[in-house]
Amino acid sequence: MAEKMLPIALSNRHIHLSKEHVDILFGKDYELTKMKDLSQPGQFASNEKVDVVGPKGTIKGVRVLGPTRPNTQLEISLADGFILGVNPPIKDSGDIVGSPGAKLVGPNGEVELSEGIIAAARHIHMGLDDAKKFDVVDKEKVKIKTPGERSLIFENVLVRVNEAYDLEMHVDVDEGNAANVKNGDMVELIKY
Amino acid sequence: MAEKMLPIALSNRHIHLSKEHVDILFGKDYELTKMKDLSQPGQFASNEKVDVVGPKGTIKGVRVLGPTRPNTQLEISLADGFILGVNPPIKDSGDIVGSPGAKLVGPNGEVELSEGIIAAARHIHMGLDDAKKFDVVDKEKVKIKTPGERSLIFENVLVRVNEAYDLEMHVDVDEGNAANVKNGDMVELIKY
Repeated sequence: MAEKMLPIALSNRHIHLSKEHVDILFGKDYELTKMKDLSQPGQFASNEKVDVVGPKGTIKGVRVLGPTRPNTQLEISLADGFILGVNPPIKDSGDIVGSPGAKLVGPNGEVELSEGIIAAARHIHMGLDDAKKFDVVDKEKVKIKTPGERSLIFENVLVRVNEAYDLEMHVDVDEGNAANVKNGDMVELIKY
Repeated sequence: MAEKMLPIALSNRHIHLSKEHVDILFGKDYELTKMKDLSQPGQFASNEKVDVVGPKGTIKGVRVLGPTRPNTQLEISLADGFILGVNPPIKDSGDIVGSPGAKLVGPNGEVELSEGIIAAARHIHMGLDDAKKFDVVDKEKVKIKTPGERSLIFENVLVRVNEAYDLEMHVDVDEGNAANVKNGDMVELIKY
């Protein structure tokens, strides 16, 4: 029988920065400093934070994740979007074309981001062995059922398979609260 | 075939006050003033607001709903609970025993609420004719499927049938955002 259970994790708002934007926000050739490793290999939460200023409001102290990426990407919840006054599209990470922007404020300078704000679509990270165990392939859509009194079934959950990935489902804070799940709670994968 | 589709509505944080607490917060024998009628007959959003002060943070301007009720009840999302520093149980409206409290601040005075903060369990209001059409009875649990790219299925949704009720599913803001639905969007009732 195929494996069914995997851990869930809630992604709080965070930002990935390009090297160019790190230079502006924190200073020329500044290197992000690691606060802690994240579950996906090589990724880390840095000690650095930026403020995000939208047309309607500001969110202070948004955590910067490292390492730097080719494009700056701010991942927020829809609730955060209401605070900022922007309407983030629900997109897979890396797909920022046409998304809204905002002003980023760091200790060394400011960046007027023209695009890059998304609400990350819920997804599952999975290594090659796990993909075999769960009988799924890269980019397959599955359902995920959460336990408990606020039990729900997330439809259209994207599976990403990569040898570097650790097994984990990622949802944002709105989705985690709606299901009343905590980091590490076990959820059930259901194939279509 | 049984009816399947009904409208959904997002309940933002709000508070129901006892007459005693209206007297303290707004002044002796103060009458709440109607801003607008709500979908359920006799219920209204008032012009009045109170601030809620929790152990960790404050939420300003929480809307008071009328008319007054026997017990004061503050309905917030789990995200609001993090702001205040309280952990609201997920309960049906009216079931506040053992729930946490907070300080309420009005223009005329303050109330130290010892209990009354809940995260309202998602539920459906339905009149007698609609209950026949949907083939459900009072207190039955059903599933609700939402449309769109963030489609999900809410399990364990409580149906409340009353001749005074207008047909509507109520979720909180976390749940509404997780499904990316707006007020009035049509959702599908699925029987167990």
